[in-house]
Amino acid sequence: MKILLINGPNLNLLGKREINIYGKQTFEEILDGLKKQFSAMELSFQQSNIEGELVNYIQAADGQYDGIVLNAAAYTHTSIAIADAIAAISVPVVEVHLSNIMAREAERHTSLIAKNCVGCISGFGFLSYQLAIQYFESTKI
Amino acid sequence: MKILLINGPNLNLLGKREINIYGKQTFEEILDGLKKQFSAMELSFQQSNIEGELVNYIQAADGQYDGIVLNAAAYTHTSIAIADAIAAISVPVVEVHLSNIMAREAERHTSLIAKNCVGCISGFGFLSYQLAIQYFESTKI
Amino acid sequence: MKILLINGPNLNLLGKREINIYGKQTFEEILDGLKKQFSAMELSFQQSNIEGELVNYIQAADGQYDGIVLNAAAYTHTSIAIADAIAAISVPVVEVHLSNIMAREAERHTSLIAKNCVGCISGFGFLSYQLAIQYFESTKI
Amino acid sequence: MKILLINGPNLNLLGKREINIYGKQTFEEILDGLKKQFSAMELSFQQSNIEGELVNYIQAADGQYDGIVLNAAAYTHTSIAIADAIAAISVPVVEVHLSNIMAREAERHTSLIAKNCVGCISGFGFLSYQLAIQYFESTKI
Amino acid sequence: MKILLINGPNLNLLGKREINIYGKQTFEEILDGLKKQFSAMELSFQQSNIEGELVNYIQAADGQYDGIVLNAAAYTHTSIAIADAIAAISVPVVEVHLSNIMAREAERHTSLIAKNCVGCISGFGFLSYQLAIQYFESTKI
Amino acid sequence: MKILLINGPNLNLLGKREINIYGKQTFEEILDGLKKQFSAMELSFQQSNIEGELVNYIQAADGQYDGIVLNAAAYTHTSIAIADAIAAISVPVVEVHLSNIMAREAERHTSLIAKNCVGCISGFGFLSYQLAIQYFESTKI
Amino acid sequence: MKILLINGPNLNLLGKREINIYGKQTFEEILDGLKKQFSAMELSFQQSNIEGELVNYIQAADGQYDGIVLNAAAYTHTSIAIADAIAAISVPVVEVHLSNIMAREAERHTSLIAKNCVGCISGFGFLSYQLAIQYFESTKI
Amino acid sequence: MKILLINGPNLNLLGKREINIYGKQTFEEILDGLKKQFSAMELSFQQSNIEGELVNYIQAADGQYDGIVLNAAAYTHTSIAIADAIAAISVPVVEVHLSNIMAREAERHTSLIAKNCVGCISGFGFLSYQLAIQYFESTKI
Amino acid sequence: MKILLINGPNLNLLGKREINIYGKQTFEEILDGLKKQFSAMELSFQQSNIEGELVNYIQAADGQYDGIVLNAAAYTHTSIAIADAIAAISVPVVEVHLSNIMAREAERHTSLIAKNCVGCISGFGFLSYQLAIQYFESTKI
Amino acid sequence: MKILLINGPNLNLLGKREINIYGKQTFEEILDGLKKQFSAMELSFQQSNIEGELVNYIQAADGQYDGIVLNAAAYTHTSIAIADAIAAISVPVVEVHLSNIMAREAERHTSLIAKNCVGCISGFGFLSYQLAIQYFESTKI
Amino acid sequence: MKILLINGPNLNLLGKREINIYGKQTFEEILDGLKKQFSAMELSFQQSNIEGELVNYIQAADGQYDGIVLNAAAYTHTSIAIADAIAAISVPVVEVHLSNIMAREAERHTSLIAKNCVGCISGFGFLSYQLAIQYFESTKI
Amino acid sequence: MKILLINGPNLNLLGKREINIYGKQTFEEILDGLKKQFSAMELSFQQSNIEGELVNYIQAADGQYDGIVLNAAAYTHTSIAIADAIAAISVPVVEVHLSNIMAREAERHTSLIAKNCVGCISGFGFLSYQLAIQYFESTKI
Repeated sequence: MKILLINGPNLNLLGKREINIYGKQTFEEILDGLKKQFSAMELSFQQSNIEGELVNYIQAADGQYDGIVLNAAAYTHTSIAIADAIAAISVPVVEVHLSNIMAREAERHTSLIAKNCVGCISGFGFLSYQLAIQYFESTKI
Repeated sequence: MKILLINGPNLNLLGKREINIYGKQTFEEILDGLKKQFSAMELSFQQSNIEGELVNYIQAADGQYDGIVLNAAAYTHTSIAIADAIAAISVPVVEVHLSNIMAREAERHTSLIAKNCVGCISGFGFLSYQLAIQYFESTKI
Repeated sequence: MKILLINGPNLNLLGKREINIYGKQTFEEILDGLKKQFSAMELSFQQSNIEGELVNYIQAADGQYDGIVLNAAAYTHTSIAIADAIAAISVPVVEVHLSNIMAREAERHTSLIAKNCVGCISGFGFLSYQLAIQYFESTKI
Repeated sequence: MKILLINGPNLNLLGKREINIYGKQTFEEILDGLKKQFSAMELSFQQSNIEGELVNYIQAADGQYDGIVLNAAAYTHTSIAIADAIAAISVPVVEVHLSNIMAREAERHTSLIAKNCVGCISGFGFLSYQLAIQYFESTKI
Repeated sequence: MKILLINGPNLNLLGKREINIYGKQTFEEILDGLKKQFSAMELSFQQSNIEGELVNYIQAADGQYDGIVLNAAAYTHTSIAIADAIAAISVPVVEVHLSNIMAREAERHTSLIAKNCVGCISGFGFLSYQLAIQYFESTKI
Repeated sequence: MKILLINGPNLNLLGKREINIYGKQTFEEILDGLKKQFSAMELSFQQSNIEGELVNYIQAADGQYDGIVLNAAAYTHTSIAIADAIAAISVPVVEVHLSNIMAREAERHTSLIAKNCVGCISGFGFLSYQLAIQYFESTKI
Repeated sequence: MKILLINGPNLNLLGKREINIYGKQTFEEILDGLKKQFSAMELSFQQSNIEGELVNYIQAADGQYDGIVLNAAAYTHTSIAIADAIAAISVPVVEVHLSNIMAREAERHTSLIAKNCVGCISGFGFLSYQLAIQYFESTKI
Repeated sequence: MKILLINGPNLNLLGKREINIYGKQTFEEILDGLKKQFSAMELSFQQSNIEGELVNYIQAADGQYDGIVLNAAAYTHTSIAIADAIAAISVPVVEVHLSNIMAREAERHTSLIAKNCVGCISGFGFLSYQLAIQYFESTKI
Repeated sequence: MKILLINGPNLNLLGKREINIYGKQTFEEILDGLKKQFSAMELSFQQSNIEGELVNYIQAADGQYDGIVLNAAAYTHTSIAIADAIAAISVPVVEVHLSNIMAREAERHTSLIAKNCVGCISGFGFLSYQLAIQYFESTKI
Repeated sequence: MKILLINGPNLNLLGKREINIYGKQTFEEILDGLKKQFSAMELSFQQSNIEGELVNYIQAADGQYDGIVLNAAAYTHTSIAIADAIAAISVPVVEVHLSNIMAREAERHTSLIAKNCVGCISGFGFLSYQLAIQYFESTKI
Repeated sequence: MKILLINGPNLNLLGKREINIYGKQTFEEILDGLKKQFSAMELSFQQSNIEGELVNYIQAADGQYDGIVLNAAAYTHTSIAIADAIAAISVPVVEVHLSNIMAREAERHTSLIAKNCVGCISGFGFLSYQLAIQYFESTKI
Repeated sequence: MKILLINGPNLNLLGKREINIYGKQTFEEILDGLKKQFSAMELSFQQSNIEGELVNYIQAADGQYDGIVLNAAAYTHTSIAIADAIAAISVPVVEVHLSNIMAREAERHTSLIAKNCVGCISGFGFLSYQLAIQYFESTKI
């Protein structure tokens, strides 16, 4: 089972800045942990701060992966383009967030991409990614 | 580890009606499956169609459980009382939904309880419950 | 033909208080009149001030009645739970109101339950119930 | 007892177009059925696609009829002029709709005329008219 | 003079949880203090987490009490049913709140019940109850 | 100086209905009074309940009159078509209302036609017309 | 007949600044013209840039004048205090504006004081004052 | 191929007034040009300032034309009745506008009729009509 | 204990106008009564119709009083300046209103000053002031 | 005559995915068809999923083309940057859409770029492009 | 070069209260520092807590100063009167704020005066004033 | 002291297009002037039309600069991603704009990035940049 993890803007700073909030782990380290935990699966990863490149990654994943775990970060709330990309492909996409977006400022209560995703896992830190992969694992059986 | 699963209004109909949407499993059967899967944990369950009884269950869980998995169903969107009950106790609460609420009608896009919950898992059918328990399992270690 | 009449909060006060507005008849007396008028039909009645009990009554009616006449009163405007209960059963529900809700304060102009009901009869006092039953009578033929 | 039925825009197409939705009966045929059913009453009928002509019909009915059954169709949601006409006359007006307007698109959830009508019957197809006439019949006694 | 104090959802936790915010006194202890202070008055008390039971208590108080002190807590902002119950009885009701609701989150700035109450006392902790009883005492003379 | 007075929907009922509000004078009688008072001016009058005919009257007045006194009644609040007609002609238009529209229901607080009118005189009963004509008289000098 | 003209903020600049918009006449010159035109009436005048002083002037006018012509300028749109002052006195108040406020920016489309005024004359430059006095003159007869 | 062009309110003034904005051509002259350009097609034309007559024209076109080019002008933004008429017939309708309505005042940014039209061509002056006919021409092949 | 009572706009009219609503007592008479009732306290009083002078009074009270009872009247709903003044001083402020502001027109449902006040007492006529002083008396012990 | 066609996000998938909705033609094939049809014109084409690159393309087109046909897709509704780019250049831009955006979800009813475009052609599939080019062709003469 | 600094409500408390937020400097001390720094310029200063007096100061500055630095404080968000005064004079006005108003509560995100000011400098403490004067200094050359 | 100036979309056109609005100076020329004026400081500059590249520049500046002067142009109003990037770094950011954004169209009245910036300087043309650098210069001492 091949899963693509896609991270949006500013998530490249994980473990480097605001470590009191997000912890000391970089996403590369988190990814290593996930790869060990899900050794039977093939996990790939891409990150960009550019909305349109996220669109590119999502489009390119079509037919190549069994599932996408997408943390669109700030673009979750403003990008119809990413929502359209998800709608255009047939790979199921799970929306994840480190923090519980419904518990933050009002501008983060809206997800424009939700309507095209299987579901959403929000608020569990890096465990949000783990749970998303577990979801795909469960559907495999 | 003791986990309480609380279901809100109309979830007592699971597996009995609208089975083309929600499947043929009753929640009792789902619960049996979860108990087998998480045999090292102690899972309890309560359901009510009455908002105030859900408040009662949440209050009563304080000091008795290590975590609550709460599917408040329709009350998710209208109940400040349930949100207040969650705020009043020290047991962590994970919000779950069978369907992806952000992908449904506008009146279901708001969660009044989110601000007091650890996180939210929405859209994975009965797997939403399983993932929530896996979250608690992961934090145990 | 079996019809269930369900009344929501404060309708147990009919004929007892605010009689200059709602008249001197208690709902029990109104019900007696309706039973005489529709002697070929079997009319049952339930009332509760508790939202979740109304959910219970609606759920329990499934498969037991040919129609429900529902005056959800104040919960008309705030209860997604009752709307979900109506959606879950296969008995047709007619929404009724004593007063013309669209002619009252703004907070009563919205019906959350309407989208799952056959139709709405509003503003005719106790005749709203009579007309609702006449509707079921007409569909019987 | 003299009752005037007034139909607004596009209701002249009943039974001619969109028959899978509204049935094969023209309003003339429906009217014939109603006249037979209420043979003790005198039923008249007028239709126009023009808002101002509906105002004319309502004004002209004053003092000539015991009741008006008004399906203002699309003008229900946009016409203050029709609402003002109803307020200006002393004949009681019952608002009717074929479909349940509160269950349709958001722009049809508002009735500008409701505040000046006795009540509203919405969602019962041509039976909405029948029930409205039954209301007048009941008040006659 | 007979006064009924009614408390809404989660107020049964007073003095038991969140004591850094609300103090260590349970409402029973507060009530004892009030009974001593107002020894010439007869103070009764009821609490429920269930909206509809609060409706029941308010209805039952009619003709039995000279005044009601009502802290509807979370239901203040969402319950038309409680507002309707207050309108239906002739006992004057004073709305009280421990915290200053207009100084809290936006969803607590609206009181649906205010329009049917004599007045509102908000923000004085348990003294809000004392002031409300003093109001009734002042009107007695 | 030639002035055209145009009245919108339901103003043909002036003096005939709701006389406790609008007085016993028909508009024809009011017009007679105005003609006597402004004997040096040529006053014409048109009324329609139909929005599009009001557009026709306004268009036809171009080049024929020195001023228009327009009481668009209910269409004031809903007609962009009338606003466009006023913009298309070069005759100055004064908006008048019998009642003070800003002191009535919220739906009458908006004037879609105001932006294309010289000014507005609202709330003085039939004197609103007189003052409008006096305005034109004053500009003549 | 004694009439008080009250001008609000920035109207003391009339004829001194922005003369291409408002003309070269100071309000004192306009007042002189009005006094000559209405020689049988007693016209007084007060102006202030301070909201509370306008409240003072309105209060002081009670029992001293037969009518008030009030141009509250910017405070028209923001002052509940002035609205309350008008409600508290028994002298009739006519609201006037030099420009047609409904034809200007959105923030000038609302008049908080309108609901307590006889009527409104807006958009006729200094003639707005003249027409307001003519209104009082007409009611005198 | 038979095409009906329908023009709404104030478009009868084209070429007669506001010629600096809309040009000197009357719609009759524009129509002559279009008939020459599309000599293989049969072009008809109707105009009315009355909303309900536009409804009439649209209804009457059913089964008589292969396409309708509709410039509903001001009614575009306010008429549910015209939208319903378009929905009721099976002739495809193309919405056109002389000016780019999305680039004008806010009240012209909404098209109530769009949802029932094939598409919209807005902002190209009389070429909007030409392009709409070219669309029908292209679909013919 | 020194308490300052501050009254906002139009409250100088108490007992002089609208006596059927507010009673025949002037505020000076009410103050005399309060001074007798609270003879152990030192009560001072200031009133102004001018927003900025209320700011002055609040600023000047800092360090001079143990509490402020503030009825900001109309400025309650529009004055951020008064709210800022309350925030700047360390004297606790209790907001009072004669009428129940949440039960009046919509524009009076918002209190801009509430967020900086201890609490609010609204709807008890002059007893609102008495209860506010009793609050300060209770905190003294 | 040189025309630049610019396509925004996800339009690179045309003919590759969702072919039941958008047809089997890739945009390259559509472009070939357009080049044949408009052999006298010089058609160029650029596509990007990145908002800022669309800004780059628009800027670079200034002085190089006689017209731009822009399908900004999802960015139509969210990009002020693209709107600013269009305003900055002197090449006329025609906005096109495959689907009728006013007939789709609410978030697609707003065009931020419309105010800087000549006009909009929406809803005609690939014919939207053809009509836009025909517009430029018509203005050439 | 003559510059007038005008401070609005509660800014007279600078350096006296809330010194942990705004520092220990009074505005008089700040002014002394600015006068030393800009010794070639003539700096004057006025403050008032009264909206209308700020209007007076702005009006009086016309023709007397080369620039105004205005911190309207709370009135920034509520005063159309101050905005009108700025529009009426020809002296350029720079809006300044100690704190970054767009980063504070929602009610401070709106500036009613901005539309008539040259620009805005917000968030730099007393340096906001210094930068505003530097702006005027730069334009002098 | 090292300062980074970052310009957002379309600012690369400065001095090249719309020179009647923005002047003939390119930003490179402006930068040269600033470098001469602030010769003791080290000024760097980056521009991009791509939102995500602006995020990149801001991230990369962390630890490398003493301050950032950011003109995010159109992205000011739509980019949560840029706001998040500013929050993630420890370099203070000053928001600047050439024009006074609060004096332009409504869609430019909101700054999503303001909450994470030191302050905002808006409306002074290229002097906005100069004042921002002067701010950093002042804090250096």
